[in-house]
Amino acid sequence: MARQPALDEFGLIAKYFAPLARGEAGAFGLLDDAAALWVEPGQSLVVTSDAMVAGVHFLPDDPPETIGAKLLRVNLSDLAAMGAEPRSYTLATILPDWVDGDWLAGFAAGLAADQAEFGITLVGGDSVKTPGPLTLSLTAMGVVPAGEALRRSGARAGDNIYVSGAIGGAAVGLAALKGDPPQLPAAALEAAISRYRMPVPRLALGRALRGLATAAMDISDGLLGDLAKLAKASRVGAELGLGEVPVAQGVVTEGQPMDASLLDRGDDYELLFTIPAEAGIGDLEQRLDLALTKVGRITAAEGLRVLDEKGHFVDVPTGGYRHF
Amino acid sequence: MARQPALDEFGLIAKYFAPLARGEAGAFGLLDDAAALWVEPGQSLVVTSDAMVAGVHFLPDDPPETIGAKLLRVNLSDLAAMGAEPRSYTLATILPDWVDGDWLAGFAAGLAADQAEFGITLVGGDSVKTPGPLTLSLTAMGVVPAGEALRRSGARAGDNIYVSGAIGGAAVGLAALKGDPPQLPAAALEAAISRYRMPVPRLALGRALRGLATAAMDISDGLLGDLAKLAKASRVGAELGLGEVPVAQGVVTEGQPMDASLLDRGDDYELLFTIPAEAGIGDLEQRLDLALTKVGRITAAEGLRVLDEKGHFVDVPTGGYRHF
Repeated sequence: MARQPALDEFGLIAKYFAPLARGEAGAFGLLDDAAALWVEPGQSLVVTSDAMVAGVHFLPDDPPETIGAKLLRVNLSDLAAMGAEPRSYTLATILPDWVDGDWLAGFAAGLAADQAEFGITLVGGDSVKTPGPLTLSLTAMGVVPAGEALRRSGARAGDNIYVSGAIGGAAVGLAALKGDPPQLPAAALEAAISRYRMPVPRLALGRALRGLATAAMDISDGLLGDLAKLAKASRVGAELGLGEVPVAQGVVTEGQPMDASLLDRGDDYELLFTIPAEAGIGDLEQRLDLALTKVGRITAAEGLRVLDEKGHFVDVPTGGYRHF
Repeated sequence: MARQPALDEFGLIAKYFAPLARGEAGAFGLLDDAAALWVEPGQSLVVTSDAMVAGVHFLPDDPPETIGAKLLRVNLSDLAAMGAEPRSYTLATILPDWVDGDWLAGFAAGLAADQAEFGITLVGGDSVKTPGPLTLSLTAMGVVPAGEALRRSGARAGDNIYVSGAIGGAAVGLAALKGDPPQLPAAALEAAISRYRMPVPRLALGRALRGLATAAMDISDGLLGDLAKLAKASRVGAELGLGEVPVAQGVVTEGQPMDASLLDRGDDYELLFTIPAEAGIGDLEQRLDLALTKVGRITAAEGLRVLDEKGHFVDVPTGGYRHF
């Protein structure tokens, strides 16, 4: 897996990353040219990749424990959106000179904790130097029974639209980290920052939605834009009730009206999904101990419409009514 | 797969990368959260990742057609070293502002040509902006019959050591590109530059070595260092005959003696493998139309020894005799 002659690359991999590969015999201790993994018959392999750059996707002074974990969770959120079970990942660490052993130890500790929590194991990767900012690229692999992967493209007119958890918390946390803290109790502020740094992949929900949801995706770029993508992939339209969206604490300032643009900020990593009206979600909220809120419905007419509590169309920065 | 709200990310993926995913239905046109792939029963999934940074692993003014192709080939070389058949890859493009449509079109054209040549298809990835140098990260997936993956760790005392092709050509090409061209005929110079920019993954050789080679790896960091790694992984030693190593044109200047350090430069991507002395390689060279040269033998005593043509130990910069 290595290509550069720098001996410290191999030392670094052996010290910080090889321990993360102990759970998978086919990772060969990160010492061979590649990993050899087993996929059970009847399972599809689900694969997703994301990259992050310091100063663009995370703050360079975020704790190292959260930086690798955030990238892992962002990828796990994609696996959740497909209804997949996490298995393995590869990681490229592209490191500037300031990265030292302490930083790497924290980075690896964050990954180790998340591996244990989410049942996924490092199986390969690369570690190279850069004169630029710290950059990370991760490819996550999971499995789903063949033919049961959730897709964005199956929503049908009349389906109800749901979101998990609450929307907008990550943006509140980012604002706070950038020196613009909203007026919030300390615990709520900490929760918002944690949401930005350590999103929670909705893996149990994704599994539960197999065979139930007609379409699903994770909300990474903002609810409005992502709902528009889901509707476009399904060749349908969507109506979203502005007052129905569950928002995180701090998103709406007390006494201020709700503004649709507050729903179109990224990094939430909740699931957005559609359920046939006649099916419903039964006791899924209770079983998962996770809020699942109906926020609108799929329409035959294409485009995204946002409605206020009186049923009037709302103009939103992303287009509100979006032509495809 | 996307996370940033920049609309041009999606436009860029749709224009330049989605056409590369047409060969795999489970890539969903790069429009879903992840790909869902099929692995045949009885096959292991072989996975490898490498990253490259402009100015470190390639020259920023290398033609865009060769930059993505080089990264793909470096990963294919790892698949070859495991005896695997290429199937799919994900690609993270981490792009500075100077990257424009022309550059991306050339980059994608280079990948398209290699996809056709090597039978591999893009199935996912990410495209993000960086204030730093152009950076690329690729994860390649292939398949091999379960239990037949070639490993570095199976070499036994008495096995013969072989290399494919010729050694050192990439370093000659790099020197030429850096303005230090060796005295070579134009065609040989071009071949050396091509070797640096577009290494040739030895996929057919890897497949043919299944069940035949006791150990294999690709030569990415230099023959001596990589042979030391293979011997260490196999818990054996190795003796290499300096005069037996097939070197590319331009590696040795006419009239100058052979110097072992010339064999320890990277980027060759030939295969290094061991074969039981009683087995031999039969007519493999003829069948593959590829030079396969016996360069030494595996010893029970650990460490790497390099011998000159008179059988004397040679002192080499990497240690010559390397204690593990």
